[in-house]
Amino acid sequence: MTQAPHDRTALEALPLERKAALLSGQDFWSTAPIEEAGLPSVVLTDGPHGVRRQAGDFDQIGLLPSLPATCFPPAVAVASSWDPEVAERIGAAVGREARALGVPVVLGPGVNIKRSPLCGRNFEYYSEDPLLAGVLGAAHVRGQQGEGVGASVKHFAANNQETQRMQVSAEVDERTLREIYLPAFERVVTEAQPATVMCAYNKVNGVYASQNRWLLTEVLRDEWGFEGAVVSDWGAVQDRVAALEAGLDLQMPGDHGTGNGLVVDAVKEGRLEELVVDRSVRRVAALAELVTEPADGFDVDGHHALARELAADCAVLLKNDGGTLPLAPGARIAVVGEFGRTPRYQGGGSSNVNATRVDDALSALRELVDGPIAFAPGFTLDGSGNADALREEAVAAARDAEIAVVFAGLADADESEGFDRTTLDLPTAQVEVIRAVAQASPRTVVVLSSGGVVSLEGWHDDVDAVLAGFLLGQAGGSALADLLVGRANPSGRLAETIPLRLEDNPSHLNFPGEQGHVRYGEGVMVGYRHYTTVGRAVRYPFGHGLGYTTVETGDLEVVATGDDSASVTVTVANTGERAGRHVVQVYVATTAGPVRRPARELRAFTKVSLEPGESRTVTLELDRRAFAYWDVREGGWIVAPGEYTVQIGRSAADVVAEATLALAGDDVVPELTLASSVAEWFGHPVVGAELLAGFLATMPEGAAEMHDGMLHMIGSMPMGRFAADFGSAIPVAELERLMDVARAARAG
Amino acid sequence: MTQAPHDRTALEALPLERKAALLSGQDFWSTAPIEEAGLPSVVLTDGPHGVRRQAGDFDQIGLLPSLPATCFPPAVAVASSWDPEVAERIGAAVGREARALGVPVVLGPGVNIKRSPLCGRNFEYYSEDPLLAGVLGAAHVRGQQGEGVGASVKHFAANNQETQRMQVSAEVDERTLREIYLPAFERVVTEAQPATVMCAYNKVNGVYASQNRWLLTEVLRDEWGFEGAVVSDWGAVQDRVAALEAGLDLQMPGDHGTGNGLVVDAVKEGRLEELVVDRSVRRVAALAELVTEPADGFDVDGHHALARELAADCAVLLKNDGGTLPLAPGARIAVVGEFGRTPRYQGGGSSNVNATRVDDALSALRELVDGPIAFAPGFTLDGSGNADALREEAVAAARDAEIAVVFAGLADADESEGFDRTTLDLPTAQVEVIRAVAQASPRTVVVLSSGGVVSLEGWHDDVDAVLAGFLLGQAGGSALADLLVGRANPSGRLAETIPLRLEDNPSHLNFPGEQGHVRYGEGVMVGYRHYTTVGRAVRYPFGHGLGYTTVETGDLEVVATGDDSASVTVTVANTGERAGRHVVQVYVATTAGPVRRPARELRAFTKVSLEPGESRTVTLELDRRAFAYWDVREGGWIVAPGEYTVQIGRSAADVVAEATLALAGDDVVPELTLASSVAEWFGHPVVGAELLAGFLATMPEGAAEMHDGMLHMIGSMPMGRFAADFGSAIPVAELERLMDVARAARAG
Repeated sequence: MTQAPHDRTALEALPLERKAALLSGQDFWSTAPIEEAGLPSVVLTDGPHGVRRQAGDFDQIGLLPSLPATCFPPAVAVASSWDPEVAERIGAAVGREARALGVPVVLGPGVNIKRSPLCGRNFEYYSEDPLLAGVLGAAHVRGQQGEGVGASVKHFAANNQETQRMQVSAEVDERTLREIYLPAFERVVTEAQPATVMCAYNKVNGVYASQNRWLLTEVLRDEWGFEGAVVSDWGAVQDRVAALEAGLDLQMPGDHGTGNGLVVDAVKEGRLEELVVDRSVRRVAALAELVTEPADGFDVDGHHALARELAADCAVLLKNDGGTLPLAPGARIAVVGEFGRTPRYQGGGSSNVNATRVDDALSALRELVDGPIAFAPGFTLDGSGNADALREEAVAAARDAEIAVVFAGLADADESEGFDRTTLDLPTAQVEVIRAVAQASPRTVVVLSSGGVVSLEGWHDDVDAVLAGFLLGQAGGSALADLLVGRANPSGRLAETIPLRLEDNPSHLNFPGEQGHVRYGEGVMVGYRHYTTVGRAVRYPFGHGLGYTTVETGDLEVVATGDDSASVTVTVANTGERAGRHVVQVYVATTAGPVRRPARELRAFTKVSLEPGESRTVTLELDRRAFAYWDVREGGWIVAPGEYTVQIGRSAADVVAEATLALAGDDVVPELTLASSVAEWFGHPVVGAELLAGFLATMPEGAAEMHDGMLHMIGSMPMGRFAADFGSAIPVAELERLMDVARAARAG
Repeated sequence: MTQAPHDRTALEALPLERKAALLSGQDFWSTAPIEEAGLPSVVLTDGPHGVRRQAGDFDQIGLLPSLPATCFPPAVAVASSWDPEVAERIGAAVGREARALGVPVVLGPGVNIKRSPLCGRNFEYYSEDPLLAGVLGAAHVRGQQGEGVGASVKHFAANNQETQRMQVSAEVDERTLREIYLPAFERVVTEAQPATVMCAYNKVNGVYASQNRWLLTEVLRDEWGFEGAVVSDWGAVQDRVAALEAGLDLQMPGDHGTGNGLVVDAVKEGRLEELVVDRSVRRVAALAELVTEPADGFDVDGHHALARELAADCAVLLKNDGGTLPLAPGARIAVVGEFGRTPRYQGGGSSNVNATRVDDALSALRELVDGPIAFAPGFTLDGSGNADALREEAVAAARDAEIAVVFAGLADADESEGFDRTTLDLPTAQVEVIRAVAQASPRTVVVLSSGGVVSLEGWHDDVDAVLAGFLLGQAGGSALADLLVGRANPSGRLAETIPLRLEDNPSHLNFPGEQGHVRYGEGVMVGYRHYTTVGRAVRYPFGHGLGYTTVETGDLEVVATGDDSASVTVTVANTGERAGRHVVQVYVATTAGPVRRPARELRAFTKVSLEPGESRTVTLELDRRAFAYWDVREGGWIVAPGEYTVQIGRSAADVVAEATLALAGDDVVPELTLASSVAEWFGHPVVGAELLAGFLATMPEGAAEMHDGMLHMIGSMPMGRFAADFGSAIPVAELERLMDVARAARAG
């Protein structure tokens, strides 16, 4: 998106008080207009899967009803599409609606990583994998900003839980931040340049994200080249002056001028340079370029149809024994479960959209299927009512049918922004209904609606098919009906592992932390990275998803395209009777380098459509980052020389083809200091051999043979200490000379 | 131990250079004599399961042969006795030998926690549990110092691996340090006041242990009241002046005066106060009080017999199907395995003792059993030779016998100080021999010798009995024979979990760290605390061990003895035919308090001897610490009000009796600041109700009903921000008044 630079001189000439006024909201949802500089108020409202434009005047709570808008599939579903086109089309549609509703900036997408399946806001996030989250997030921003509406990628960063979200300090080491929690933001910023980035509520390693200069300036702007404005999450600013200095441009909502006054005072008292204020003023002023006359409405019906089409791309067919789905034409169907007629289609909290209409699956099925469909609610959403009677009614309906479709899931009260779940289990009453129905019915399908992953244990083996819809937006009901009857082909893939037990999740004992701190103890081993690395069985792995056809993978070819990159070519063939869409998942596995690598990591993917019998050859490029790890010593991405296995997976746990290539990688000459270890010195690629030979020459007969054993005992001793303590024949002057040699080689 | 204070004035009057000279070794093993102050040189040599007194003049490498001494069972075995008397008797015997060998300070015991079963030095450490390690360590010190020989509890602290041990920074949060890695040191210091504490090589949270003022002064001296000298691990000092200031008194070994010169310069240049030097001089000078005339030898035969007796208390009978053990009198026995005639009885590295003699199990069995015993080595210790032929010979021997006893384990080269293992597996050749023998023999017993836990997978189910000897010292061979024939009754219990898979260990993916850092990501969930909390199956749990008799537990009674303590009474009865020793294990389980508690934690234990038919009632006291957690906000131990279940376990995984009690606990009034959360404010025990009532009174109708939902969304918001941002009716002056009220209640 191009943002015409505002007249810099005119902005800087504004009185300090007026500049400060621009840097916080005039109310809950908009910036202050600065008429004398020609700057209109800029409205920023919640997204991202639909516009939440508050009706009427903006208040100071922001909880008044909002104007009707299309509720598209939330991020949890979009991620399951594994299709950036889905994300981009949603972004574009949201952008069109925003323009109609007079909203120049829609807040989103959220690209935080699903560290725990319990996080209450997981429905707003894409995945446990940063590549998938980043690709989809960037596509959403491209779509939305392509319509002239600014985006706000959020919540930057390490905002992976709701518990104590405004207080907790995420304790995360830098490699883990760089490899897991930051790359999705990095990709969105570098590929799609969003108008704004929203900082998170939480602290990162003890410093509020809103005041974290390393995050907001060094990484975001200096390294990634972000050019837009950083806006606070609503209420995230603690110390306004510190936040401004760290790189936080716009505080939302406003605080009646209190913070602006602090900024003015700080400048006047010499504690804050006015150029810091000017810098943020320019950035916030640039948002005014996004303000346009509202468009004349939007295509309500067209967008609903789009929501239906895209929702069908998102659902994941987890299990389909004996071709249970699609439903056989003419089969006597019983629909069970309150969610069948009262769909759960979006999450609670700030992203909640006032949908233009809502489709339920039961009505949609009745439209698509000939003949009557029985219905029994089976349970109530709030657990009220007589569970036994409801269950018996459902069993009776199922007994009379040839196939039962149970719509189960989580109700609004079970998960939301603002709190985290404490269990993965479905409500007991639902589990009992599923089991009872499965026993009564010849065939049983379970359709799941939930923002977060739910456990399938206790009933999975009793049923024939499972279709996970997550939350599919306002047309989710009709989309699910399309999939059930085969009017659409399921092609979603899990963007998040479904574990056997909550306790198996690597964050389990460190979630949601305690006493103000949450330790990211699992490091980079998040989600499938953990399960595959420790060989832990899961119910369904990341990347898993079935279709109504079968696809074979073959002819894998992997070719290095440089010292640190490769090209992957593979052929996929539809060997079934129906059309389908298949996701080619490319993982890289390696043990190269000085850090513990996950068993495999997703490094590229693409979704291809295949007619029956069709075969397509696709090529995916693996760039440097596909092989790199973050080296905390070098402070950068390093491709270690060594072997890399490129794997094509049906999922993270099911590799169907692989090929190994050797990469020259980076030529890193380690720095040497007196604190470097004896092993690092003797093993140094430039000066090690010389030092060792000289040392051994001074040692008694037989010492060379003792070398290996000796290194076991003293290999980790700092060389300076070794030279001083152990009577070694290594003068410090010689070490200093060799340090210079190593330094020169490093620089060269 | 009483250490007569040296004449303080005389010491302070020494020239600075002479004082500094006292603070580092004159060579590898001794301090410098300061004749003018009447201070002799003090010899400090390795222990702790035997004296390693280097023969001849001390050199600068410290690797010359040492004088013969009794090699008692190393700590790994002592821990399995669960018997402080075993530890104390070993300590006393080592003390007697040290006096005979002219050694006033023997370095040990090592009480580091077994964070990973891979740690190369685990054979020198006691347990994965800090209570067990602390009780045994304190007993060892009591025994040794009771003979007038100073101890050195080591390696302080968080030295839980050998990989990069002199470089790595252990990244551990304070609760984890306080609850897991420090308590064993704390107990040894507070209960047994060792003459010295040895600082570790590694860094703790970025600061070398040798320079860590928090560890060496604030915790060790100010909190725990340590009165002795802190000595460096050999070569652990990096910055001598910083170390001295931090509380490191004695640098070992000496560095030819280099460091002393730096100390002198620092004082002269005003960078170091001379009173810091004087303080350490007094502490090191006090060690001279331990110097005595060497005793006239020691009872070599008596100590060997003691080593045999105690070793039998240490071995753990893991499995004994169908009463396979003790060996039936007259049974035709085949002994298989090189370890049967070439025992592995101690670990490699600084603690290696030049044993006065060594018993092997084969010879001992032949002495104890009538009739011939066949022997086949089965494998070689270094993997050389023809594995097939060796195995076939073993199978032939087993086929001719009624019972086969296979001595398997790890060789010296497989584990040692200086490096960590990378696998739990026995060498493949040994596994193959065990399986082949088990198939050929009607009954098969496996006897294991190893310093660290080895995996039992791949063969466990094939054999009838497993006796884990770990490393039993020089009389281990005869002690194992005693146990096998029933001359002694096995009574050991595992001091460390035997997992099903290495990957199940909670430290697995964070061990041994990378690029200079090791993240203690599992926090307090070390060993059985993890397995029991996440419900992970293990091969044998912490605390497991069988005897030749059966013991029933009953009549549990738990009575609170105060707000934060309880008394536990339980009856154990020998219901079998043989005498035996039983370990009463008392665990406490709770979910009280704001931190995640392990499923259960060992809080008391005692070992009782029971004749056949005998029943004994024992009472164990649970003090405040048995119920407390470390509260990082309060900076201290807190007993949370709530319910506590006291459990008697046969192991950490097998609770045989339990009783719940309610404790009043501590009356903690939380501090309130503007950064405290809305939930913390409204929930505050002193001012919360008043604040909430006042707030709701200003809100519109219906707000009270919204309260719970509102707290979900904004409960974690800092109150200062809430008051400022959200137009709340809470003036800051009112908050400040309430903060004062809370502060006053807190102080009261």
